[in-house]
Amino acid sequence: MSGGGRVVTPGTDPDAEWGPAEHAQVALLADVAAAPKPGNVDRDHDHSSLRLGHFLAGGVGAGAGLRDAAAADPVGGAFERAVAGMARGAGTNTQFGSLLLVVPLVRTAAAADRALSPDGAAAIAESTTVADAAAFYRAFEHVDVAVAEPPAGMGELDVRRGAAAIPRLKARGLTLYDVLSGSAADSNATEWTTGFRRTFETAAGIVDDDGPLTDRVARAFLDRLAAEADTHVRTTHGADVATEVRERAAAARGDPDAVAALDSDLLDRGINPGATADLVTAAAFVALERGVSV
Amino acid sequence: MSGGGRVVTPGTDPDAEWGPAEHAQVALLADVAAAPKPGNVDRDHDHSSLRLGHFLAGGVGAGAGLRDAAAADPVGGAFERAVAGMARGAGTNTQFGSLLLVVPLVRTAAAADRALSPDGAAAIAESTTVADAAAFYRAFEHVDVAVAEPPAGMGELDVRRGAAAIPRLKARGLTLYDVLSGSAADSNATEWTTGFRRTFETAAGIVDDDGPLTDRVARAFLDRLAAEADTHVRTTHGADVATEVRERAAAARGDPDAVAALDSDLLDRGINPGATADLVTAAAFVALERGVSV
Repeated sequence: MSGGGRVVTPGTDPDAEWGPAEHAQVALLADVAAAPKPGNVDRDHDHSSLRLGHFLAGGVGAGAGLRDAAAADPVGGAFERAVAGMARGAGTNTQFGSLLLVVPLVRTAAAADRALSPDGAAAIAESTTVADAAAFYRAFEHVDVAVAEPPAGMGELDVRRGAAAIPRLKARGLTLYDVLSGSAADSNATEWTTGFRRTFETAAGIVDDDGPLTDRVARAFLDRLAAEADTHVRTTHGADVATEVRERAAAARGDPDAVAALDSDLLDRGINPGATADLVTAAAFVALERGVSV
Repeated sequence: MSGGGRVVTPGTDPDAEWGPAEHAQVALLADVAAAPKPGNVDRDHDHSSLRLGHFLAGGVGAGAGLRDAAAADPVGGAFERAVAGMARGAGTNTQFGSLLLVVPLVRTAAAADRALSPDGAAAIAESTTVADAAAFYRAFEHVDVAVAEPPAGMGELDVRRGAAAIPRLKARGLTLYDVLSGSAADSNATEWTTGFRRTFETAAGIVDDDGPLTDRVARAFLDRLAAEADTHVRTTHGADVATEVRERAAAARGDPDAVAALDSDLLDRGINPGATADLVTAAAFVALERGVSV
């Protein structure tokens, strides 16, 4: 485990200071600084007990783990460290799901050939080990995370058991990829097992868009919200509400007043499309790696 | 020069991940995420060519230099690295002045006894060397910075000469403290030569305030704007405008409509009280070190 990135001497190429870990932090911050993002904490508004400031501190705290991933350290340990730092900075869960997507993508970008592609990301995901899975379970000890009930027969591997589940994990020889393959109800897990397909698609849209990154992120968020039911909304409010949000987002696109009304209604009802934010944050990271600037 | 902070192993105290460098980054981000801060880029609005996103990327980019300062590396090199990273991230000057205050304070907090006090900060400032001064001059090569004309007879040491001034600096044996002692027109230089007196006073106000950090920062900003003419406004718009801004800020305090009107007017006229933002950012860093949370 490295101590946080590249050793440089003064006067060397400043590009050495600015790589995948820094792009990842900017993506985390740009996500929460974008607006409007209906139902999310964003530039325009906080939730009652979760604020923009928490996300900024979470993004700062995740830095050490992201630098580990950029130094090609194993994905699981880098993820656990990023989550621990996020929790230490924010004092709550701000970006657990985003980091579950961003850390393997940073690790992919750190590969010798910088092949930040669906195939490259799939290879990183599929090469994870039992040790990566154990670190993933330990990460749940740092924060409360909303998760769906595990599939039948998987109760012993419920992530909410945290480190207590590790002996069972080891006995069954399950890698992090195996664990996430069993979580079909979660859109972040789906990304892991599909070469981050929707992440790369969304990134292509951000690259093709124009204007400041935060404006591109807000548009991508609404597009994703309209395209597919948010799995975090489904977990916390049920499938009907998730479908309703998707349909209303689809109808509101292109109409700022309708977007504002949707935003206001989701805030009132405590509905936070967090899985969509996770995906768009990961897509913003890919877009930054592909040359989009802030 | 260290490569960016502490080496830790997984499972060690997460406090090791969260120290002065992280507090400094949060202070940089909380400054720009606060609102209202009349005339500044803030949570509520951008300038036409300088946006919230630039400041977020600048704060991320400054990280490596801030971690050097937290590892007790010399102030000048840490400052130059922070500025270079900021410029690489933001593509423009976002936080040069804030870093000129924050870097020596991070270095002070990193001293063996963590004596983050006016006396401790004065000792760090007074112990700077000619090498620190040379690094400070090199930092001006990374970005355009608005500075006042140098005092009579000091033209050879004009900071706008950048590295070209270094031979003269060495010939005269001037330390960074010496250089800043000759810049009485700049409020950041004044902090360096007065034990960061106003920074610590402002930090005490932030600590005694309550609510989210960003709200405390916005109140501290207005208090400082009302207390003293902003030296960046003086440099860019003249002494009369700086005085006018101070008087209007004093009259507007406690009246949100008057604050909003002042904000709107300063934005229209391109008047940005940047020196006040620098001071409040440094004060937010001290307040975070003293236990204020986001």
